[in-house]
Amino acid sequence: MSFVLKSTEERARLWEPMFARDLPTLPFYVWPEVENAQDVRYLAAWQPPENLEEVFPNLEVLFSVGAGVDQLNLSSVPENVRIVRMMEPGLAEGMIEYVLWAVLSCHRDMFRYARQQVEHMWKGAPNISACHFRVGVMGMGALGTPVLQKLSEFDYVCSGWSRKRHEIADIKSYAGAEELDAFLASTDILICLMPLTEETKGILNRQLFEKLPDGACLINCGRGGHLVQEDLLWALDTGKIRQAVLDVTDPEPLPEQHPFWNHPSIFLTPHIASSSRVNSGGEMILKNIIQYEKGMKMIGEIDRSSGY
Amino acid sequence: MSFVLKSTEERARLWEPMFARDLPTLPFYVWPEVENAQDVRYLAAWQPPENLEEVFPNLEVLFSVGAGVDQLNLSSVPENVRIVRMMEPGLAEGMIEYVLWAVLSCHRDMFRYARQQVEHMWKGAPNISACHFRVGVMGMGALGTPVLQKLSEFDYVCSGWSRKRHEIADIKSYAGAEELDAFLASTDILICLMPLTEETKGILNRQLFEKLPDGACLINCGRGGHLVQEDLLWALDTGKIRQAVLDVTDPEPLPEQHPFWNHPSIFLTPHIASSSRVNSGGEMILKNIIQYEKGMKMIGEIDRSSGY
Repeated sequence: MSFVLKSTEERARLWEPMFARDLPTLPFYVWPEVENAQDVRYLAAWQPPENLEEVFPNLEVLFSVGAGVDQLNLSSVPENVRIVRMMEPGLAEGMIEYVLWAVLSCHRDMFRYARQQVEHMWKGAPNISACHFRVGVMGMGALGTPVLQKLSEFDYVCSGWSRKRHEIADIKSYAGAEELDAFLASTDILICLMPLTEETKGILNRQLFEKLPDGACLINCGRGGHLVQEDLLWALDTGKIRQAVLDVTDPEPLPEQHPFWNHPSIFLTPHIASSSRVNSGGEMILKNIIQYEKGMKMIGEIDRSSGY
Repeated sequence: MSFVLKSTEERARLWEPMFARDLPTLPFYVWPEVENAQDVRYLAAWQPPENLEEVFPNLEVLFSVGAGVDQLNLSSVPENVRIVRMMEPGLAEGMIEYVLWAVLSCHRDMFRYARQQVEHMWKGAPNISACHFRVGVMGMGALGTPVLQKLSEFDYVCSGWSRKRHEIADIKSYAGAEELDAFLASTDILICLMPLTEETKGILNRQLFEKLPDGACLINCGRGGHLVQEDLLWALDTGKIRQAVLDVTDPEPLPEQHPFWNHPSIFLTPHIASSSRVNSGGEMILKNIIQYEKGMKMIGEIDRSSGY
């Protein structure tokens, strides 16, 4: 029985001694230097090797080193292999910081002040209190929930929308397709923190934008595939959306000639909102292997039927 | 006995009914339409009229409509007139939002991503946790204290410096000239929230910047007069300071040809970090007049010897 890491050198360097300390009997290999491929039970990777079933015929658990598993072609992972996404505290911490920064930027009109600076224009507008902004988060999972909790400490009027109903103190919760319109109609700043699945692909589209109040803001920290790019350009050009903050695009990196780069109402960051911390990511996987070997639940195991 | 407001039309429109409700026997005048100037006991203004002593010979209290009183020429206000600055909850709320936004911008390198966007460059850097950033606030008063408390919730290592020692939970407190160097040496992100007085004028100068770690950030939400402008340009050009966020300048508005506008490492906003909310500002003054007439302490009354 052995473990294979197919990832960055930094993870390899830091995780090997952690595994040697906590699971000394489990051989630790760094891809592609793997001995006895038929002994491999655990693989941690962003992308598994091609022909996974042939390469590691006895694989039992595939750990994603990222928060999502949408980068995987699930159909190429044998049905009996369990798939676990990365859930570690650093991921939520980074996301809280990024989303709060983006919400404050929209609320306090910082992107407008940046444009004014280019024009040497000194012109302030009256402050509007946070309690006059309705912030809505799509996706109330391991990231959406702590983000909503932090935003509500700032007096924003917070609500969340999810496939299933989630109860969080002080947060209005909307659920399912039938409540989506009501959620959108009462959202001035919309934040996407959903997993990317067949159901959510392209969900940020013209039909959805039309249901927002005029002059809403969009913050996409989900995946580039959630957004229909030409529909965002339409929404910005008509004023339906006044500002977009995008940490994810499709593809990544965004091509150099893409119209998003120069758009005055789009702020782009290169997928940096949140990343798993190398150390606590390794500890999370160790903990999950120990739980798995005891027959216990693994944290972050996905439901293969829903894809997240 | 009467009250005079010398300020914006909005304040006049909103405050007049509040005063009629709570102090119906106190005549309320809007400058310059004042009857019986010798009856005026209270004046609320950003700047009092010239020759104050002659215009309102029996003035007892001057209320500033702003958080500071540095806009006043204190020597032109008769010694016996008490001076009260504006302290209302909205001021701290706006300042917390602004400073947190600026700290997150520095910590998460948002100004660099803005520059990269102009160059169509998609290049992320690893996230560094908040616990690796030391944030120091100069001025631990009505604004500095709540700002520090909020920052400490984000795991920043927080400290404050003030003329006198202030004890705040989880915040390291430095006091007086003899502890300033130690404070600066352990501050990666420096925030100025001091009152502008003879002692603090020009305090943000080359000598002070030299004591910061290399690559520190500066956030000035005090007054433009705290900063020696050419010394900031020196500090940015040598890399001593990597980014400045300035909400205040001297003069304001910043002249159109000023070098700050185009500097790649300066982010400018037009004195919008925080402003007193019109309604709660009026309530604060009403409350203070009632306290004063009962012989009680007024909230925000300045010590005329220290100037704040």
